[in-house]
Amino acid sequence: MVVTPVTTAPWRSPLDRALDDNSSLGSSRFLQLATIRADGRPANRTVVFRGFLRDTNQLMMVTDTRSEKVQQIHHNNWGEACWYFVTSREQFRFSGRLTLVMAAHPDIWLRTERERAWQALSDAARSQFTWPKPRQPCPDNPPVGSPIPNVIAPLSNFCLLLLDPVEVDHLDLRPNPHHRWYYSLQGSCQESIWSVEAITP
Amino acid sequence: MVVTPVTTAPWRSPLDRALDDNSSLGSSRFLQLATIRADGRPANRTVVFRGFLRDTNQLMMVTDTRSEKVQQIHHNNWGEACWYFVTSREQFRFSGRLTLVMAAHPDIWLRTERERAWQALSDAARSQFTWPKPRQPCPDNPPVGSPIPNVIAPLSNFCLLLLDPVEVDHLDLRPNPHHRWYYSLQGSCQESIWSVEAITP
Repeated sequence: MVVTPVTTAPWRSPLDRALDDNSSLGSSRFLQLATIRADGRPANRTVVFRGFLRDTNQLMMVTDTRSEKVQQIHHNNWGEACWYFVTSREQFRFSGRLTLVMAAHPDIWLRTERERAWQALSDAARSQFTWPKPRQPCPDNPPVGSPIPNVIAPLSNFCLLLLDPVEVDHLDLRPNPHHRWYYSLQGSCQESIWSVEAITP
Repeated sequence: MVVTPVTTAPWRSPLDRALDDNSSLGSSRFLQLATIRADGRPANRTVVFRGFLRDTNQLMMVTDTRSEKVQQIHHNNWGEACWYFVTSREQFRFSGRLTLVMAAHPDIWLRTERERAWQALSDAARSQFTWPKPRQPCPDNPPVGSPIPNVIAPLSNFCLLLLDPVEVDHLDLRPNPHHRWYYSLQGSCQESIWSVEAITP
């Protein structure tokens, strides 16, 4: 077992390599995020990786405040993301707490990051936030086309979603038997260190 | 809302089409299965779709009885599988109860299905069940190569895993705005019927 300072999470290096090795597929930035419903059942859906929050190890995603996952995360903020890379045949699993950064978030620095995330979206992705509330019966006369919202100022229902991993499981299916590493964050806050261990697949 | 008998789940037809449309990618049979850990946190990992259980709507997967998900399912048998199809840009989410079919399962019909699932695996997939217990520190001298187990009789740690959906959410990202359908199983046992509704994405 090897320990490294929290500032340089040791799983970032194999993840960066996987992102490079799989960059020819646009879908290589899609991962599946599991959360817990209010009734205790799991929920699971595809989300898009939007990079890391500045110099932290937190994965950035975006969501609509009207989506079911926002209510689920309000109720239970634990999540696990599963990221499978097709080309390099690797899987990363990230378990950690989720943070919702909405328009009224008390931290001004995170509010600025929310704005930056909005500005980094494509027009098509931004326009989805003008659509009707999700998971409602379809209207008889659905709107045709979508307005293009302001590029600078996020719509109020735009939410930055952060996953702060405390455990990362990396499985490499290429060798036989497969290789697997388990990373875990030990300690708390300023004192945290990542441990890493090769484990059986 | 349209209702159809349980014997022909109406989501099977779009799923069959997606399997056809995406068949050029071997990874199109990989999906992510979320379960609940004993401490209430979600878990999420990639599994392989092994077809449907005979003439039912239950998705078949396989697992090792020594894997963590088996303990999780013993504790809470709700699961949600998220299946994203890269080529056709569609997502299916399946929420339902999971069933573990081990060597000593009381139902002889399910025990036979477990044997059939074993026989349908590749040699490489079968040999994985001879590997050491998962998620243990790697031994200093790992075994080189893997024995090829008997093709007919499953190893005792081989487990057939079934997911019996009660809700299915199908999202088609091709049109703009996207199309989405929500299927849910209403009633119980012999009386069950599937409802289907177009909902906002």
